[in-house]
Amino acid sequence: MKLLRVGTAGAERPALLDAGGTLRDLSALVDDIDGALLADEAALARVRAAADSGELPALDAGLRIGPPLGRIGKIVCIGLNYHDHARETGAEPPAEPVVFLKAPDTVVGPDDTVLVPRGSAKTDWEVELAVVIGRTARYLESAEEGLAHVAGYAVAHDVSEREFQIERGGTWDKGKNCETFNPLGPWLVTADEVPDPQRLALRLWVNGELKQDGTTAEQIFPVGEVVRYLSRFMTLYPGDVINTGTPAGVAMGRPEPKPYLRAGDVVELEVEGLGRQRQVLKDA
Amino acid sequence: MKLLRVGTAGAERPALLDAGGTLRDLSALVDDIDGALLADEAALARVRAAADSGELPALDAGLRIGPPLGRIGKIVCIGLNYHDHARETGAEPPAEPVVFLKAPDTVVGPDDTVLVPRGSAKTDWEVELAVVIGRTARYLESAEEGLAHVAGYAVAHDVSEREFQIERGGTWDKGKNCETFNPLGPWLVTADEVPDPQRLALRLWVNGELKQDGTTAEQIFPVGEVVRYLSRFMTLYPGDVINTGTPAGVAMGRPEPKPYLRAGDVVELEVEGLGRQRQVLKDA
Repeated sequence: MKLLRVGTAGAERPALLDAGGTLRDLSALVDDIDGALLADEAALARVRAAADSGELPALDAGLRIGPPLGRIGKIVCIGLNYHDHARETGAEPPAEPVVFLKAPDTVVGPDDTVLVPRGSAKTDWEVELAVVIGRTARYLESAEEGLAHVAGYAVAHDVSEREFQIERGGTWDKGKNCETFNPLGPWLVTADEVPDPQRLALRLWVNGELKQDGTTAEQIFPVGEVVRYLSRFMTLYPGDVINTGTPAGVAMGRPEPKPYLRAGDVVELEVEGLGRQRQVLKDA
Repeated sequence: MKLLRVGTAGAERPALLDAGGTLRDLSALVDDIDGALLADEAALARVRAAADSGELPALDAGLRIGPPLGRIGKIVCIGLNYHDHARETGAEPPAEPVVFLKAPDTVVGPDDTVLVPRGSAKTDWEVELAVVIGRTARYLESAEEGLAHVAGYAVAHDVSEREFQIERGGTWDKGKNCETFNPLGPWLVTADEVPDPQRLALRLWVNGELKQDGTTAEQIFPVGEVVRYLSRFMTLYPGDVINTGTPAGVAMGRPEPKPYLRAGDVVELEVEGLGRQRQVLKDA
């Protein structure tokens, strides 16, 4: 299923994109698309049955699309998780996953405005595969177990300010938590429709020019292993999100003058089977 | 006012500790102690008037105390923010605040069990002054403005696993987000009752032995400046928490063999005027 949330920011209603491409209202069936729903197999089965029945009310296709997940608990991010991206940044491939956090309040819809922070000269793009947790994951033993705790997948844009991240002391979090820095969606695609998360193409364009053209096959730590690994350091709950890293092609990896983002730029990005985002940059 | 939340974990009710030390029920007046309440001056005034009336129903003093804040948006932490702590860790005092994040799901009540993670040999203590945001803070210009966005203060225990934090690659977040790693409370003391947050004593004992004995006067970046600084990198919302750093005296700063925490240890901590916590350590 392709689950999503549509309507004005902060007042989105749960919806579903059916097999025929029609937007269907789920608000009579569920409160929201959130961790509680994803952990509730009976509720998910009811949604699936309603979708199959073809009887859900259709919604206006022109509605704004919000992030496909409400009440996100935490967003855990994996840094340098693609062989090709580690090479372009000049970093050694990490021996174990590099972990940082984004606050859920950075999340916006897939086509919402992204703000270049005041004083920023190095706002960068990162297309990522986002993993949404469906079952509480705590001290898992294997990557297979890790995968079994995934409810679904989405496109994430892990917008990053490189000066704040790297040159201002301390940890990466400082360059990862500016407002609007985590467009998510359009859909949460349930895991049953993503048979192999390690075979997904990821692409990102800036002003129409292809900048990132990667595949999750390049991930140093695949999805199941990331979930297993994280579960040893923190408990993952339904509705938590993992941004699993970005492939090569970010502005930071380019020759000088590096083509960092500015107001007026348009970023488009997609992950195979998970939909497409489009953001216009503005000044904060 | 001393606001708090009492009852079983996940089902706490809002309460108030009155001037006479009696626990009073606020659940007829407010849904919860959270960002929405802290941002609502009229609601806070109603709580204050009810407290002054002496007519709020008393609650059983034996109820479990939960964290004094619900629906926490994010927890931003400042590292190495005390001159004496920077010295003991061998670090240079940072030129600007070191920032990392804790997930709100690490928060437990002030006297709840703290779990030593599996595989941990370096679980450490950190008594901290926690700041609770009451108004949206975005690109503030001055430390005075920063202070004006603070709703109140609380005791926080920023439990830290030093191997996970420092020796496992990547950022500090990996050693800061284990479950139960952020006891908070007992109270949220409103800012009007803390005339000078830079003159508060902080103390922590392990098994009755005083380990940390500091003062917020040693903070390299005082509270108002921390709020101003953070607001340039991220938007702070009502109900966000800032852990403002720990003074000297952590296990990591001691000679070998360093006295890291183990199951059975008892940690007690307090910040002047903000109450006292007591946790028994257990294995996860």
